[in-house]
Amino acid sequence: MNEALLDLCKRAKNIKYDIEKLTTEEKNEALVHAAKMLVERKDEILFSNNIDIDNGREKGMNEGLLDRLLLTDERIKGISEGLMQVASLPDPIGEILEERDVSSGLHLRKVSVPMGVIGIIYESRPNVTADAFSLCFKAGSAVILKGGSDAINSNRMITQVIKDALTDKGISPDAILLIESTDREVTREFMTMKEYVDLLIPRGGAGLIRSVVENSLIPVIETGTGNCHIFVDETADMDKAVKVILNAKTQRIGVCNAAESLVVHRNIVNEFMPMLSRALKEKNVEIRGDETIRETIECTPATEEDFGTEYLDLILSVKTVDSIDEAIKHINRYSTHHSESILTSDRENAERFLKEIDAACVYVNASTRFTDGFEFGLGAEIGISTQKLHARGPMGLKEITSYKYLIEGEYTVRG
Amino acid sequence: MNEALLDLCKRAKNIKYDIEKLTTEEKNEALVHAAKMLVERKDEILFSNNIDIDNGREKGMNEGLLDRLLLTDERIKGISEGLMQVASLPDPIGEILEERDVSSGLHLRKVSVPMGVIGIIYESRPNVTADAFSLCFKAGSAVILKGGSDAINSNRMITQVIKDALTDKGISPDAILLIESTDREVTREFMTMKEYVDLLIPRGGAGLIRSVVENSLIPVIETGTGNCHIFVDETADMDKAVKVILNAKTQRIGVCNAAESLVVHRNIVNEFMPMLSRALKEKNVEIRGDETIRETIECTPATEEDFGTEYLDLILSVKTVDSIDEAIKHINRYSTHHSESILTSDRENAERFLKEIDAACVYVNASTRFTDGFEFGLGAEIGISTQKLHARGPMGLKEITSYKYLIEGEYTVRG
Repeated sequence: MNEALLDLCKRAKNIKYDIEKLTTEEKNEALVHAAKMLVERKDEILFSNNIDIDNGREKGMNEGLLDRLLLTDERIKGISEGLMQVASLPDPIGEILEERDVSSGLHLRKVSVPMGVIGIIYESRPNVTADAFSLCFKAGSAVILKGGSDAINSNRMITQVIKDALTDKGISPDAILLIESTDREVTREFMTMKEYVDLLIPRGGAGLIRSVVENSLIPVIETGTGNCHIFVDETADMDKAVKVILNAKTQRIGVCNAAESLVVHRNIVNEFMPMLSRALKEKNVEIRGDETIRETIECTPATEEDFGTEYLDLILSVKTVDSIDEAIKHINRYSTHHSESILTSDRENAERFLKEIDAACVYVNASTRFTDGFEFGLGAEIGISTQKLHARGPMGLKEITSYKYLIEGEYTVRG
Repeated sequence: MNEALLDLCKRAKNIKYDIEKLTTEEKNEALVHAAKMLVERKDEILFSNNIDIDNGREKGMNEGLLDRLLLTDERIKGISEGLMQVASLPDPIGEILEERDVSSGLHLRKVSVPMGVIGIIYESRPNVTADAFSLCFKAGSAVILKGGSDAINSNRMITQVIKDALTDKGISPDAILLIESTDREVTREFMTMKEYVDLLIPRGGAGLIRSVVENSLIPVIETGTGNCHIFVDETADMDKAVKVILNAKTQRIGVCNAAESLVVHRNIVNEFMPMLSRALKEKNVEIRGDETIRETIECTPATEEDFGTEYLDLILSVKTVDSIDEAIKHINRYSTHHSESILTSDRENAERFLKEIDAACVYVNASTRFTDGFEFGLGAEIGISTQKLHARGPMGLKEITSYKYLIEGEYTVRG
């Protein structure tokens, strides 16, 4: 047992009921103050970030990863604005979700309450440090953060600035706790701290998520892997379909709501695929097609493995189907249950797709790129759940709360 | 990998979308038919149950356990009535939970959907077999059951009767699947079947629950351990308080919502404890008290361990406190977050208790025994959750569903 880790977990558990008692105004003021302090102390943050960047360069980190790690004046301003925005959102705590008298004469209320202590395990983006804190704090919970070791200096400084801001406002700095050890064994131990941590959210690639699901004793919400499909039905408007597919595949390629696989009705393959192929070629997207597709356009062969792959790259697999039934079956088989879309003019097929596709977000005639807390009007997002327990799809403040029942009687006994 | 287990899990996953598509009427008719068949074929069920009882006797099972295992005409009638009742409940699937237009012009609906495949691991009560099936089926999910090996013959026959009833109604008998192996290794493997099972609910003692939490890769809802407290504040009506405590401790002793520990305000110990002690003695309840309590009445000393123990027996630990603050702190420390109650005439203290106690169900002036799906008006109960994720407290049909977002546009792309 790592003593520093145990101490951290105990501190979070000790402080959680104090955070729960903060008023909405106290929470908002602290968030606004932290937002200001992050900008005011940006030189310290940039200095720390520079150490991480130098270390990354030395280790031969590629430019993409270095860019994810990099902070700038502009990016710190963005982080600060994120905190301001969370401060402006409604408080998700204390809402009466249900209220009724029950048969025994008791009066029952179901009210939203904080989770308590939320753990977040994430990779190298240092902005997550402030984002995750702000959402957990507004939702009345303490947060224990375990960021990527490459960003340790940046994370440590951002955490320190937030701790100081909390202290300024008379709030315990233990509301945000950072696991500073870069030892993987410590991360593994953290996942067993069931007695201290109420919820664990992994944010990152498929490998990180898998490791957390396999090792955690703490309840987990799985996030983020998206092998998203678009089904082009035979009645789709082909010109518009090309635009939606381009948007879903290329607007941002490294994100979980980008399209990774296309399913096309056999009746339109000959007309549609050449149109699409030209448009995708302009955007440097490689098509990997099944046999039917390869008879129509020039492309790489798609293997069984392709249909199950989240590329996060300029690649799109394409599968031909004979019917909506085959499309639904194929998608439900290879889906990571994130976001799936049908492009069609047939209302009956649209209804069947909505009903029968097993995913957090099912679209008719829209790009999968809309799966996002802000786009859904949640005001913020801590991740996109791909499991069915607790929360599904984009998670905002409400999705990281729990509830309890408050029951009042007059010395009432059960008969 | 156990081949029979893998086959079972695959069958559940294959059938889940067919169950999801059943109409409310189809589900209800099947439940009513199964209810009738259970009574019609009760001789077969009693014959199988008799084998389990004989085996239990031979193994030297105690009378309490034998009674839990035993089925009678009356009990089978009760099981059948349970199915009829589930048939009469509203369908939890397809409800529109939220609906709005979002900024991009998309129309968004959030609708309740089935979990898919639910696994239930339970101990020796064979009635759970039919109960759990009926709730999962009504909630649109396939169920995989792993009952206690002592009840294997009873469970097998009940499952067979239900399978036959489903077949009569043109529904796949795979909607209910029973793991027949009594090998513990198979149970452990079942808990790793994340690819096939969406939710796992353990029902039973603390040891079973712990084993599932520690070994499962499938999302789990923890149920049932209740170290429930009653805090008698200095302003409590003492006569009425005695009645509530008697009810909470002795109305049924082996249940999770029974009171296990009392917290008493120091200012009333001298007057209250002798009253309570006399009443509890009549019911053969042993008191284990702290030093202050032992100065007032004759009783066993309470150790630190006592305060953390769910006795499920005629024992009650008693702790003295100086204030509501100390009471809340003590309870939050030893609570299993199930049900906690305050007896008081002080509104301010009642409010603080409701707000600051961290439990699924927090009571003012009522017995903890009310924590129950039927008492709460849920119409049914599959267990009582003691975790914060997904569902907390009594779980009915709604609590074993998930949701998805349905989003419709007009070939809408993200800008």
